[in-house]
Amino acid sequence: MKAQMTPLEEIRHSASHVLATAVLRLFPDAQLDIGPPTDNGFYYDIDLEHQLTAEDLEKIEAEMKKVIKENQRFERKEVSREEATKIIEESGQTRYKPGRLADVPEGDTISFYQNGEFIDLCAGSHVNYTKKIKAFKLLSVAGAYHRGDENNKQLQRIYGTAFPKKEELEQYLVNLEEAKKRDHRKLGRELELFEISDAVGQGLILWKPAGAVIRQELQDFISEELRKSGYDQVFTPHIGKLGLYKTSGHFPYYQDSQFPPIIDRDALGELAHEGCSCAELSNKIKDGDIDGYMLKPMNCPMHIQIYKSERHSYRDLPIRLAEFGTVYRWEQSGELNGMTRVRGFTQDDAHLFCTPDQLREEIEGCLSLVKTVFSSLGMSDYRVRVGLRDPDSSKYVGDAQNWDAAESILRDAAKDLGVDFVEEPGEAAFYGPKIDFVAKDVIGREWQLGTVQVDYNLPERFGLEYYGTDNQPHRPVMIHRAPFGSMERFVGVLIEHFGGNFPVWLAPEQVRIIPISEKVNDYADSILEKLKAAKIRVTLDRHDEKLGAKIRRAETERVPLMIVCGEKEAAEGKVSLRSRVGKSLEGSCTIDEAVGKILDNIAAKALPEA
Amino acid sequence: MKAQMTPLEEIRHSASHVLATAVLRLFPDAQLDIGPPTDNGFYYDIDLEHQLTAEDLEKIEAEMKKVIKENQRFERKEVSREEATKIIEESGQTRYKPGRLADVPEGDTISFYQNGEFIDLCAGSHVNYTKKIKAFKLLSVAGAYHRGDENNKQLQRIYGTAFPKKEELEQYLVNLEEAKKRDHRKLGRELELFEISDAVGQGLILWKPAGAVIRQELQDFISEELRKSGYDQVFTPHIGKLGLYKTSGHFPYYQDSQFPPIIDRDALGELAHEGCSCAELSNKIKDGDIDGYMLKPMNCPMHIQIYKSERHSYRDLPIRLAEFGTVYRWEQSGELNGMTRVRGFTQDDAHLFCTPDQLREEIEGCLSLVKTVFSSLGMSDYRVRVGLRDPDSSKYVGDAQNWDAAESILRDAAKDLGVDFVEEPGEAAFYGPKIDFVAKDVIGREWQLGTVQVDYNLPERFGLEYYGTDNQPHRPVMIHRAPFGSMERFVGVLIEHFGGNFPVWLAPEQVRIIPISEKVNDYADSILEKLKAAKIRVTLDRHDEKLGAKIRRAETERVPLMIVCGEKEAAEGKVSLRSRVGKSLEGSCTIDEAVGKILDNIAAKALPEA
Repeated sequence: MKAQMTPLEEIRHSASHVLATAVLRLFPDAQLDIGPPTDNGFYYDIDLEHQLTAEDLEKIEAEMKKVIKENQRFERKEVSREEATKIIEESGQTRYKPGRLADVPEGDTISFYQNGEFIDLCAGSHVNYTKKIKAFKLLSVAGAYHRGDENNKQLQRIYGTAFPKKEELEQYLVNLEEAKKRDHRKLGRELELFEISDAVGQGLILWKPAGAVIRQELQDFISEELRKSGYDQVFTPHIGKLGLYKTSGHFPYYQDSQFPPIIDRDALGELAHEGCSCAELSNKIKDGDIDGYMLKPMNCPMHIQIYKSERHSYRDLPIRLAEFGTVYRWEQSGELNGMTRVRGFTQDDAHLFCTPDQLREEIEGCLSLVKTVFSSLGMSDYRVRVGLRDPDSSKYVGDAQNWDAAESILRDAAKDLGVDFVEEPGEAAFYGPKIDFVAKDVIGREWQLGTVQVDYNLPERFGLEYYGTDNQPHRPVMIHRAPFGSMERFVGVLIEHFGGNFPVWLAPEQVRIIPISEKVNDYADSILEKLKAAKIRVTLDRHDEKLGAKIRRAETERVPLMIVCGEKEAAEGKVSLRSRVGKSLEGSCTIDEAVGKILDNIAAKALPEA
Repeated sequence: MKAQMTPLEEIRHSASHVLATAVLRLFPDAQLDIGPPTDNGFYYDIDLEHQLTAEDLEKIEAEMKKVIKENQRFERKEVSREEATKIIEESGQTRYKPGRLADVPEGDTISFYQNGEFIDLCAGSHVNYTKKIKAFKLLSVAGAYHRGDENNKQLQRIYGTAFPKKEELEQYLVNLEEAKKRDHRKLGRELELFEISDAVGQGLILWKPAGAVIRQELQDFISEELRKSGYDQVFTPHIGKLGLYKTSGHFPYYQDSQFPPIIDRDALGELAHEGCSCAELSNKIKDGDIDGYMLKPMNCPMHIQIYKSERHSYRDLPIRLAEFGTVYRWEQSGELNGMTRVRGFTQDDAHLFCTPDQLREEIEGCLSLVKTVFSSLGMSDYRVRVGLRDPDSSKYVGDAQNWDAAESILRDAAKDLGVDFVEEPGEAAFYGPKIDFVAKDVIGREWQLGTVQVDYNLPERFGLEYYGTDNQPHRPVMIHRAPFGSMERFVGVLIEHFGGNFPVWLAPEQVRIIPISEKVNDYADSILEKLKAAKIRVTLDRHDEKLGAKIRRAETERVPLMIVCGEKEAAEGKVSLRSRVGKSLEGSCTIDEAVGKILDNIAAKALPEA
């Protein structure tokens, strides 16, 4: 069967074949693995003794241009397995291609694509001629294990991208440069926001003072929205007995994405006493057949215990339990990335327990909260994906009527949001349908953030009940929701979204006072005290430097507001308030007026100027 | 050598011998273990087949009165080890006493005390005559393992207390009754403050909505004090690599008081592959010879990583890093008790990094913070213990000059607090001297809460540095401090201190609106909205009941303020504001006036009326 790609994917996929063509012309010894298109471009994994340099990439790029100019035709050939083996042998690509051929299931069509002298095992699809690749660029080389397995050989992965038009490529490259400048790992270090220490462990974030201010402001903001919306906050432990996660179903089924359990000391002692081996212990862990504790991978089982600690009448519902709950999951080390892919993260989590009749209103409330939160941060460009069940599958729990109702509620609620939305059948969790929020940052990249999920499964597994008007026990529905998703990931995205130029309300240092000369140091001190008393995060630049140097440093350090004062201001009891980009809030005013303007800006959660 | 007890201890110690005398008269088969005085009374551990009942205690008490009336003389006899063995054999107390005799080090004096027919191996000291025991009472029987070891036989421990005067005993018994009513486990359940679930694990607190409000208010209060005092807040993970805790010294030396490590999946896989046994694994864990993660038993190593992530000049110091950091420690299950002895607790922690010259000012700042915090909660009755080094021991790290300076700073600072303080040589940690705060609650019980500790050890172990005026690296001093100690324990103590009657600023529900009849429901709703808008935690009692019943329920549920409104108030646009104990804030006023009074009370952190 021929795979069908989108036109953009076909361009990129074809570019990866052109890349391989060029590589083989320049490095005939190269053994090829695979070369697919990706969300942002394409790559090809190559086994080559010579370490590719930036200069090599230029040469390869030049050769690719020749191949494109030759306007080679992409020809598809469907062959038998025997013919395929023969083609691979003739091409000399015998190190990885035979394995890739073996991956094609018996009975499936085996196809090759040929352009010019190059032939490659490939399901397709491709453009017709190489000239259709109007704009491409090679970007980098990185190591990548064959089949992503650390035990295999590390290959050289050449990354590139391609677009239908030159302007699109240029815009992409500009955005890429911008993204590098905004990289939250780079800014996180420069602005001293967070630290990842090998001594503590990869993927575990140490929030330094400046980063902690941002997180705390966001948590306070959410907490206030939760208060207005009738949520109750709770605190729960970071570990729970293994049995709790067996009941919830997180263990043993999802154990590969979790930290291993903490094995009870007595249980291990007993196994040692019985002469048990580590291999048997490993198996017992895999089967969940051991006493111990899990680092919590989710907060829900804890919130469920709180729900269960009391008898509930229908009058008590909905119950909305919220927590900034830190959970731990085991991501492969290769997948870790700054704050956006981590092993410990703090969900702005909540679980709502409601009657089926209340589901619609509660879902609407959740979506409205997410909307408020996103728009307050200038992330007004977002879309939603509605994950529905696969009509042909029977893997789902809960009765069909409830599912129909919940899906229709989610669909309607998503429509009412007035943003792009797409329905994705088969993308529901097995326990219920869901809505995911995908936000676009200022340079056009998409980030999956918040989520709202309906759950019929956990109430069943934990035997949750409420007593209805009939005084009989009924099963509540649960909603899982997290507007930011995770504080770590969200702050990582925000750093890139704002390029470190946070709005005043989030800025770790909101105002810097810059005296023009030492003569006004006392005056500057009196301003400092007034701002501190107003709970403004402020510092005073006491360096003995020129005004210009002090302003530049404040700009580099991303301080959004500056108060400049010289002898004239001191004599008049005034200050000059300027914003980092020097546009607004300018002019001379009294200290009290300046404080008022700053507090207004903070209260309004004003977005930073461009 | 004769042990010297205080007069009160002598009375209680003697009462325990009188208890044993009476027990042997009534139950000649009883085998005695030990019977010391305690902080609040005395006990005797007895091995007896018959399970003692409340009636038995009455009988024993009556017999004790007889013994006292006989006015037996306490006689001390110093004997050789051979004579001692003979006395024990003659007395028939051969099950536990020979072991206790063996505990007396070779060369030490062996003594017995005899009163009437009863003779007991005992270092002393005692009152002269049994009649000196003027007031005593037996309180309860509980199981207690011989030598506190679960593997030994469980004995019956009879608890009692004794005082020099009848009035003192009576007051003590009244306080004991009061303490039962105030038991935080009982109130925690009744007021739905927290939950401990077997499914999650013993000693792990689930903070329910009402309890979480109290904790959050306390955290906000502390955070504001920290802000004023120039602290920076941070967030750090709840796990760290085992190696981090080997560097800090927490592992393997303190592993018995910690949760076992999370063993790295690959490390366990390798051991399994090598055919390693669980016994070998156990040993590797004990030696810390394995890769994995620890649940953090302390926050300090994390804060140290933050300190280390930047180069520091003397100008940057002091650096004060604070965190509400949840730590996990392994308490024996028998020692767990509600919120006051737990396995996971949240320290209101901070670590200060300063130069030796700054130590004095920083210690003073810490103590002043603790003082502010305690007095805000009406805990003005506290004393401090200054833990100094044992002059005869060489176990301490850091040079003598620094120790002398730090001890003298702590001593002076403790004196300046103007409260009772006691110096305790030998009670310093091996890494530095410390001050512990011991607070007395309203019924006279003492609780060890906050602590301020100087640390020369961790800066050394982690190689911490700052660059001095000489541009050379120097070692900073660390201070560990936690005013509350732990949020769990502190809230547990506060529940008992206030007997559940929290001040308005801490109360989960601050105000209950009670309409006198359904006719004023709309008016009551409008009051509700106004209070909610003012961020007051308020509910409206919509039950169709008599006013008295509603007020009683609000009182039982410990709501500190009530707003009562009937048709008269509705007509006049007024309300009647009353406090739970019906004393102050009474009278008729407008809604705005009521809101103003409530907000004033909250802002002032007013203590509840008696």
